[in-house]
Amino acid sequence: MKLFKHLLFFTALSLLSFNPLFADGKIEEVLSNISVSPQTQTCLGCHIKHTPGIARDWLSSRHAKTRPAEAMKKPALEKRMSAESPPKELQEHVVGCYECHGLNAESHKDNFEHMGRRINIVVTPRDCGTCHPDEVGQFTGSKKSYAYKNLMENPVYFALTGTITGIKKVDNNILTIQKPTEATLHETCLGCHGTQVEANGLKTVATKLGSIEVPNLTNWPNQGVGRINPDGSRGACTACHPRHGFLIEVARKPYTCSQCHLEPDVPAWNVYKESKHGNIYSSKGNTWDFSSVPWKVGEDFKAPTCSTCHNSLVVSPDNEVIAERSHNFGARLWVRLFGLIYSHPQPISGDTTVIKNKDGLPLPVTFSGDVASDYLVDRPEQEKRLNAMSSVCSGCHSSTWIKGHFSKLESTIRETDDMTLAATKLLSAAWDKGIEDKANPFDESIEQMWIRQWLFYSNSIRYSSAMTGAPDYTSFKNGWWYLTENLLHMKDWIEFKGEIKDKD
Amino acid sequence: MKLFKHLLFFTALSLLSFNPLFADGKIEEVLSNISVSPQTQTCLGCHIKHTPGIARDWLSSRHAKTRPAEAMKKPALEKRMSAESPPKELQEHVVGCYECHGLNAESHKDNFEHMGRRINIVVTPRDCGTCHPDEVGQFTGSKKSYAYKNLMENPVYFALTGTITGIKKVDNNILTIQKPTEATLHETCLGCHGTQVEANGLKTVATKLGSIEVPNLTNWPNQGVGRINPDGSRGACTACHPRHGFLIEVARKPYTCSQCHLEPDVPAWNVYKESKHGNIYSSKGNTWDFSSVPWKVGEDFKAPTCSTCHNSLVVSPDNEVIAERSHNFGARLWVRLFGLIYSHPQPISGDTTVIKNKDGLPLPVTFSGDVASDYLVDRPEQEKRLNAMSSVCSGCHSSTWIKGHFSKLESTIRETDDMTLAATKLLSAAWDKGIEDKANPFDESIEQMWIRQWLFYSNSIRYSSAMTGAPDYTSFKNGWWYLTENLLHMKDWIEFKGEIKDKD
Amino acid sequence: MKLFKHLLFFTALSLLSFNPLFADGKIEEVLSNISVSPQTQTCLGCHIKHTPGIARDWLSSRHAKTRPAEAMKKPALEKRMSAESPPKELQEHVVGCYECHGLNAESHKDNFEHMGRRINIVVTPRDCGTCHPDEVGQFTGSKKSYAYKNLMENPVYFALTGTITGIKKVDNNILTIQKPTEATLHETCLGCHGTQVEANGLKTVATKLGSIEVPNLTNWPNQGVGRINPDGSRGACTACHPRHGFLIEVARKPYTCSQCHLEPDVPAWNVYKESKHGNIYSSKGNTWDFSSVPWKVGEDFKAPTCSTCHNSLVVSPDNEVIAERSHNFGARLWVRLFGLIYSHPQPISGDTTVIKNKDGLPLPVTFSGDVASDYLVDRPEQEKRLNAMSSVCSGCHSSTWIKGHFSKLESTIRETDDMTLAATKLLSAAWDKGIEDKANPFDESIEQMWIRQWLFYSNSIRYSSAMTGAPDYTSFKNGWWYLTENLLHMKDWIEFKGEIKDKD
Repeated sequence: MKLFKHLLFFTALSLLSFNPLFADGKIEEVLSNISVSPQTQTCLGCHIKHTPGIARDWLSSRHAKTRPAEAMKKPALEKRMSAESPPKELQEHVVGCYECHGLNAESHKDNFEHMGRRINIVVTPRDCGTCHPDEVGQFTGSKKSYAYKNLMENPVYFALTGTITGIKKVDNNILTIQKPTEATLHETCLGCHGTQVEANGLKTVATKLGSIEVPNLTNWPNQGVGRINPDGSRGACTACHPRHGFLIEVARKPYTCSQCHLEPDVPAWNVYKESKHGNIYSSKGNTWDFSSVPWKVGEDFKAPTCSTCHNSLVVSPDNEVIAERSHNFGARLWVRLFGLIYSHPQPISGDTTVIKNKDGLPLPVTFSGDVASDYLVDRPEQEKRLNAMSSVCSGCHSSTWIKGHFSKLESTIRETDDMTLAATKLLSAAWDKGIEDKANPFDESIEQMWIRQWLFYSNSIRYSSAMTGAPDYTSFKNGWWYLTENLLHMKDWIEFKGEIKDKD
Repeated sequence: MKLFKHLLFFTALSLLSFNPLFADGKIEEVLSNISVSPQTQTCLGCHIKHTPGIARDWLSSRHAKTRPAEAMKKPALEKRMSAESPPKELQEHVVGCYECHGLNAESHKDNFEHMGRRINIVVTPRDCGTCHPDEVGQFTGSKKSYAYKNLMENPVYFALTGTITGIKKVDNNILTIQKPTEATLHETCLGCHGTQVEANGLKTVATKLGSIEVPNLTNWPNQGVGRINPDGSRGACTACHPRHGFLIEVARKPYTCSQCHLEPDVPAWNVYKESKHGNIYSSKGNTWDFSSVPWKVGEDFKAPTCSTCHNSLVVSPDNEVIAERSHNFGARLWVRLFGLIYSHPQPISGDTTVIKNKDGLPLPVTFSGDVASDYLVDRPEQEKRLNAMSSVCSGCHSSTWIKGHFSKLESTIRETDDMTLAATKLLSAAWDKGIEDKANPFDESIEQMWIRQWLFYSNSIRYSSAMTGAPDYTSFKNGWWYLTENLLHMKDWIEFKGEIKDKD
Repeated sequence: MKLFKHLLFFTALSLLSFNPLFADGKIEEVLSNISVSPQTQTCLGCHIKHTPGIARDWLSSRHAKTRPAEAMKKPALEKRMSAESPPKELQEHVVGCYECHGLNAESHKDNFEHMGRRINIVVTPRDCGTCHPDEVGQFTGSKKSYAYKNLMENPVYFALTGTITGIKKVDNNILTIQKPTEATLHETCLGCHGTQVEANGLKTVATKLGSIEVPNLTNWPNQGVGRINPDGSRGACTACHPRHGFLIEVARKPYTCSQCHLEPDVPAWNVYKESKHGNIYSSKGNTWDFSSVPWKVGEDFKAPTCSTCHNSLVVSPDNEVIAERSHNFGARLWVRLFGLIYSHPQPISGDTTVIKNKDGLPLPVTFSGDVASDYLVDRPEQEKRLNAMSSVCSGCHSSTWIKGHFSKLESTIRETDDMTLAATKLLSAAWDKGIEDKANPFDESIEQMWIRQWLFYSNSIRYSSAMTGAPDYTSFKNGWWYLTENLLHMKDWIEFKGEIKDKD
């Protein structure tokens, strides 16, 4: 085994000079025109052949063409790298395999010896922060970076999660719910929220080149945005900047966001696609420039995508800043449309497990609608954020237009909350009569109708309202039609169940 | 305030000569190579800076490059402007801000003094008709232009609208329905159908340049296709030709239509996307020419989009006319697939509130299926329209193929109407037994299942049949699976509710 | 009539020399630079004018530019034509109308005399096999080619089909189901599975050029993948290679597959679109090369589409074969995710009507989960196929990654099968109590909930798991939320129906 590894290592090195692969234009160009570090040359020696897809993807990336030493010198608005002075040893080579997978080895429990080098399997936000500290700093305080914790360590949310994803058994007509398995959590909720990736020693795996020893990782692979990493950090930049091109173009296009923000619970993508903005994007987006920094409204693009409104650095064609870049995706949000169970001001901390409402539950609102204001941003902060968002709108729209739009949203938030309250009242009465059991408020039929009211329908309408111009989503598709029909069904179902119960 | 305005006005004018903005290539080119009117120069002076998105969008438009005097001279088939001789004062400048926002000031209740000029906020079809009279004429007679009236002034449809979008309250377990608010109607039904935009005096709004006075408009912003405008006209050309590029390319791409014509009630887009035509468009559409006039089948495009079949001027590569342009989108339609509550011949008038069926209701068909023939096109007119549509098909398909396709559609219309009738019979029996109350035929559970049968499922199957090749939409996705399941559910639910009622 | 035909024929021939159509660049180029057979020149003489869409589509195709004589000489990896030596008379002309529509006339019951030539309306896989025998051979043994038979001649599946698509009548509150019509089967199930196209003599049809006689075909037009053709063959290559461009690019893009493989029953497209692979494709696919053969991972494309994983010839940039081409789309599949009613190993034969399970039903699994192993591939064959698929993954991913992914899928298959079993137990109890009648296991409310459990929800989760990275589809959208809710609804509904029954 040891011999085999050394053999490979030297083969890899030798490949650089006479492997016919490197005779093709692209590879040679890379090696002659750009400054690839010796470590990364070793990596490429094998991986250009054995995982050509990602190696070539990297070759097409900005990382493969840029030395931090140059990137540092860009004018402020054009900077893509926020580190004032990244470590000296990284400055003079392009950002290749080893520059990322070799960072901070000491804190990486997934570090292992691979072909003579110490390599981390998982590259984490802490690693990316070496060159992009501002972005990682913003992200680290945000709800996104707490996506795992906020779900798994909030007993109320976890009760919902477990109720949905746990296997049900039927024996003698009795239905019981088991604890969800790690595998199923991994590919349901934690597919977006991120898994807990831990390194449990080494294991031997068979590869095309023979068997090798690699860290034994739990819940891997996963790119969820709040992933718990083997270096103790939270998050996965690759959730939005997929490997190994890491293109800003991809992160700015709405498909990236659509992986997690979609119907029925968070229908941001579905609504956007049907909105006027989305229609214009679909029709003309292929002629826009999704790579330029800063991003010029009217010149680089004619209608916003998700990132325009939520986090990109947007400027006018004469470089006047319309919106600052932020990787805290809540930075321009004043209200949380995502009802839990009612809409409410955005939480102050990205860690929402700290919230306690008047009923003592870790929820931003009580079941009857009381808001846990101490944990939520106050009115002045809300105004500030609304202004930040309005500034983006003002790139194209007049003040009247913008105010008209947001006052409609305000009315919609109020009305959808009322429609949730109506459902809560029906459910409460059913609980009071013993028709269903409040102990777990999520595991019976009427309770699940109630969940639909806020998690699917009220949410959908609010998202549609916020991205005006998707009337079908407010009217029919998971909108008012369903809000109404669902209430009527709840009412009837409570009567049917009540009838059965009375007879018992 | 007055001083402020004058100041702005002069600043705006002066910007034209020395604002560094105008030093960039694009803007200078516009001003030197094209003939922008002095009025529009004033507008651009501020708006190129303060709403750069729309100003630049306009800059990329055909309007910004075209003087009506030239457009008039195009050969008939290539004309994009139908006016034989537009007003002299508009002929020699490109079509800029003031050319549209300054028209017909006297009839515009939304006209106001803005920086020294009289400006209309809302540009209406009547305004667009100055240069595009044929298109506006066709549109004005169509169902689309009556979209507001047909919904809001038809008591039956409005009962449905109000039932769905009105807030529900629950008190002591009693559910009551309130009148829908203007805000909610605005962003549900009227998002597509159009709002009633009225000017109620002036109001003061804060802008980046200080506060200004602007008309106080109701239900604004809105681009619904049947919008009631402050000049008394109906419609919004911007529903399909979004501002300020107004590109024919955008109107011809299916995303534009998809904003309103989508599932579950009008699933034209969903079905198209899944059809063979839609698949070819998605795969190869990026290589087609969506801007050429006339539009050449086989040369400019290889598979139809919505506009090909419904309203574009389509010719063969040797300029033989296959289909005439029409902005009455029903011009090539003989049957109305959209069941109310059954499929029926297209209405004669775009204003469908004039219809009265045998039960005295303003519906094209009675609940039991009797057609209000007096208000609907007759057989010869239907044949004429079917031929017009078949002509489009014949650009690619043989006569046998076309006939085979449409005879299948005919069978499907009949069968889906039968499936609606089956549901109507179940509901009628429930009404007769007092299980639900016919007074409002839309506000109880079984009634809503009945609505699903025609508004969601029968419609979906008919749309799929018309755009052959989307078998999933006929089979499962809102198709026969649901038609069948829904009937079974209705039957059971009637029994459950009957059981409760018997006990009372 | 006879005169008319001759007239047309000679006109057609003469068109070639002086028709102004042929004066346009494209056509002339075709005729001068490429070798069009005299027969095809006759076809084009009329069809370039009368069905310009398909004629021009063909003109843009590879067929219109390639003589089999050249295609034969390509290096093995670059070959698009598998015939070693196609018939001499086809070798020297490009592949035009007559080369395909004139083949094997003797076995084509849809052959007819058209403008002086014998023409087949339907081009079949047997015809395509003249030049592409390997592809047709692979296809002919596959489940796809048996798609008609497997559905229509399996009494269990046909019971489901008929239950769903048959018209329901309601008389005296009794609901009865009629046999589905051919027209409805044609545009529902058989839209994808293929119709039975038979020639019943000739019929006269009116065309733009006067009436002509053509074969009277049943269930036409149709491009379903398992179509029964008038020459006795099975299948339609045009299902994925639409006419008349037949572009490999179209077949490789996911929209083509999406026509049939979509939610709720086979949500391959919906899941792909939401997966990371799909997101990258949507963002960057327009810059990839979908036409090159062989298809180079990392160079031609950066993320897979359906065809990458399932059937394309995929190589590394240095032409190392990663996966062999196959038109048996099950060739890289070891497990059948599509539950009938449970997941199971892939069937050995493409003809699944031969299967008999322990209950004597033609299903791969019994209702209680016993697998009909004799008809399904064994463990070694499964391993072989899993390795073939893993090889595709290894173009970008490490061994650990791939194993982690597939072991998650294995767990998901087990759990979703358990969730189906739970539903089956509830239904069995209801059958035992006479609440519903097992005679037709598909035609009552609770039975249809049970169908949803395996056909919609378990399938969706398994497809999502297989294409990791679409967490919304596993969690909410037709995923675990529905699996759970549906069980709870079944349980309540059984109690409601039981209550009614007890009273009777």
